Amino acid sequence: MPELRKDPVIGRWVIISVERGKRPSDFASPSHKRRVSGFCPFCEGNEYTTPEEITAIRPDGSDPNGPGWTLRVVPNKFPALRSDGELEKTGEGIYDRMNGVGAHEVIIETPEHVSSLATMPPERAEDVLRTYHERINALRQDGRIRYVLVFKNEGEAAGASLEHTHSQLIALPIVPKIVKEELIASRQYYDMKERCIFCDIITQELEDGRRVVYENDGYLAIAPYAPRAPFETWILPKKHESSYQSGDGFSGLAEVLQRVLRQLDSLLDVPPYNFMIHTSPFTESENEYYHWHIEVMPKLTKIAGFEWGSGFYINPTPPEIAAEYMRNAEI
Amino acid sequence: MPELRKDPVIGRWVIISVERGKRPSDFASPSHKRRVSGFCPFCEGNEYTTPEEITAIRPDGSDPNGPGWTLRVVPNKFPALRSDGELEKTGEGIYDRMNGVGAHEVIIETPEHVSSLATMPPERAEDVLRTYHERINALRQDGRIRYVLVFKNEGEAAGASLEHTHSQLIALPIVPKIVKEELIASRQYYDMKERCIFCDIITQELEDGRRVVYENDGYLAIAPYAPRAPFETWILPKKHESSYQSGDGFSGLAEVLQRVLRQLDSLLDVPPYNFMIHTSPFTESENEYYHWHIEVMPKLTKIAGFEWGSGFYINPTPPEIAAEYMRNAEI
Repeated sequence: MPELRKDPVIGRWVIISVERGKRPSDFASPSHKRRVSGFCPFCEGNEYTTPEEITAIRPDGSDPNGPGWTLRVVPNKFPALRSDGELEKTGEGIYDRMNGVGAHEVIIETPEHVSSLATMPPERAEDVLRTYHERINALRQDGRIRYVLVFKNEGEAAGASLEHTHSQLIALPIVPKIVKEELIASRQYYDMKERCIFCDIITQELEDGRRVVYENDGYLAIAPYAPRAPFETWILPKKHESSYQSGDGFSGLAEVLQRVLRQLDSLLDVPPYNFMIHTSPFTESENEYYHWHIEVMPKLTKIAGFEWGSGFYINPTPPEIAAEYMRNAEI
Repeated sequence: MPELRKDPVIGRWVIISVERGKRPSDFASPSHKRRVSGFCPFCEGNEYTTPEEITAIRPDGSDPNGPGWTLRVVPNKFPALRSDGELEKTGEGIYDRMNGVGAHEVIIETPEHVSSLATMPPERAEDVLRTYHERINALRQDGRIRYVLVFKNEGEAAGASLEHTHSQLIALPIVPKIVKEELIASRQYYDMKERCIFCDIITQELEDGRRVVYENDGYLAIAPYAPRAPFETWILPKKHESSYQSGDGFSGLAEVLQRVLRQLDSLLDVPPYNFMIHTSPFTESENEYYHWHIEVMPKLTKIAGFEWGSGFYINPTPPEIAAEYMRNAEI
C-alpha cells in the first residue's frame, strides 16, 4: 500500500509509492529513452492487457473489455494510490502520514495509436472533456476522497511513459497544497472585494487584450500575467463557475482547448506538454470565490536548482509576446 | 531589464527574463542536446570570455581575469536579474510587478574541465563552500537585496548549460515563496514548542537511525521523511544555526557534502542533480526558529501534470531504503 507523508516544516505531502520502481538500478539514465517498442496496451484489440475498464464509450453497444470503443477509462496498472481500504492517519514522532487511499485512473482518449487530443474530431474531444466531468462526479460519492486532479502528460519529456494519447486522474484523500493555496488566496480576495479574483482577471485581460490567446462565447484562453513557463496558457470559463462543468456539453471548451493545443503544436513543433484542471474541492464545490480553469504548460525549460530552492520561475518569454505568437500561429 | 511579476492568486513570483531566448524557434526540442563542443568559457586560459571576475582564489598572486586561479566568481553572462538600477515596484490593474534588480553570479569551482565537486581535493571543496559564504556576506551590504539563493545544477537534465563544474547564486529583492513558507512554518512551531523544528528533526533522526545517510562531528546527512525525489538528501548542521556559516572553516561540511555526492555518483551512475542552500533572509538572519541546510536532489524522475497541478510529489523510493543504499554505497 502506498503511503502519504507530510514534510513537517512546509506541509508538503508526498506519495511514497513502493509499487513502482525503487532500486538505484531502476532509474535509467535520463539519456536512455524508454520507448515502448511496437506493442501498445492502449490500442484497440489489446484491452486484455489493461485492468478491467471502469467506463467506456461504445457506440456499437459492444461488451466491456473488448474492441468497439472510442474512449476507455481504466485503473492505472501501477497506481500512485490504491482504492481499497479505509483511510488511516498516523503519527511517527513529529512526522505525519496516512495510507495511500485514493484512485488513479487512465482516460484512453482514442483507440487509434497515432491520434492526438489536438487533432481528433471535435465531438471526440468533447467526449474526453465530458468523461473527466463524469469521473469526478462518480468519485465524489466516495467519502474518503476530497479532491480529484485531472491531468495530461503528453510526450516523454513531460512525463508520459506511453505514447498513445491519454489523460489521467488521481483522486486524493486530502486537498493538495497548490489547490489549498489558491483557495485561501481567492477567499481572501473575495473577503476584501466581494468579487472572484479570476472574474477580475478575465475582465482586465479582455479589456487589455495583449495576453488574450483566443476566446469564444463561453471561454477565454490567455497567457497568464506571471507564467512559470514560456507559452503557458490558461483556459477559463468567462462566467463564474467554481467547479469543472459545462453548460453546453463541453463543445465550447473542446474548441478552445483543441485550438490552443494546435497553436502550440504549430509554433513549437509538437512540444511535450502537461495540462491540469484546477477545480474546487468536494467540500466546497459551489462557492463565489474560486473559478475552475485549465492550465496548459508546454515543457520547454527545465526545473533547476533555482526553481527548487525558491519556488520562483525564470521565464524567458514575456506572456504578451507568447500570446501574440499564439494568435498568429497557422493552424 | 528583466521584470519580476507576481501571480495575483497564489503569490508566486516569476522572473520574465527577456535577455534570454524568447522566440518559439529558440526552444530546441528536448531531444536535441545543446552540448558545448570543444570550447569552454570556464576553463583556464579562457578568462577573457566571461564578464570581469568579482573575486577569485589565486594562490600565485596572479592578476585578475587571467590564468593562475583555483576558483573564480564571475557575473552570469545571461543574468536572470541585473545589478544596476533602483528597485521599482509598480502595479498594473490587479497585477503587481517590480523591475528585475538583483545579482546572478557563477562560481567556477575549478580551472580543470573534467573535475567535479564530488571528487576534487577536500581543501578545494572547502574553498567553494567558503566562497558561497563570502559572496552572501558581500551581497548583504546591498540594501536592495533581501535573499541570496546559492544552488548548483549538475548535468544537462538538471538544467546545467555548461559541463564545467560550477555553482550559481541569485540575489533577490524579495524573499522567495518556499523560503517564506519554511520561515512561517518554523516560527509557528517555535511559538508552540519553544524549539526549532529542524533541531527536533535532527534529534528524532539520530535516535531513529533509519534515514541517516552519514554524520560527522558537526553535520548530519539524512534522507528526509517526505522526500520529493528518490535519494533526496539533506545536510544540516547538528547545532542550531539560522544562517549559512561554519565554525570550522567549512571542512566538516565539505566532508559530508563530498561524501553524499560520491555516494550518489556511485549508486546512480553519476546522475544529474541540483543542490540548494536554504538559509535565513537578511532581515532575520539570526533567529531561534530557522535552521540552514542544504537540499541535494538527484534528477531521476520528471515533474509532470500531477506535480504541477498539486504541489504533491510521487516518489517511488522510501527514504529508509534510499538511506540504506546510501550508507552501503562503495565510494
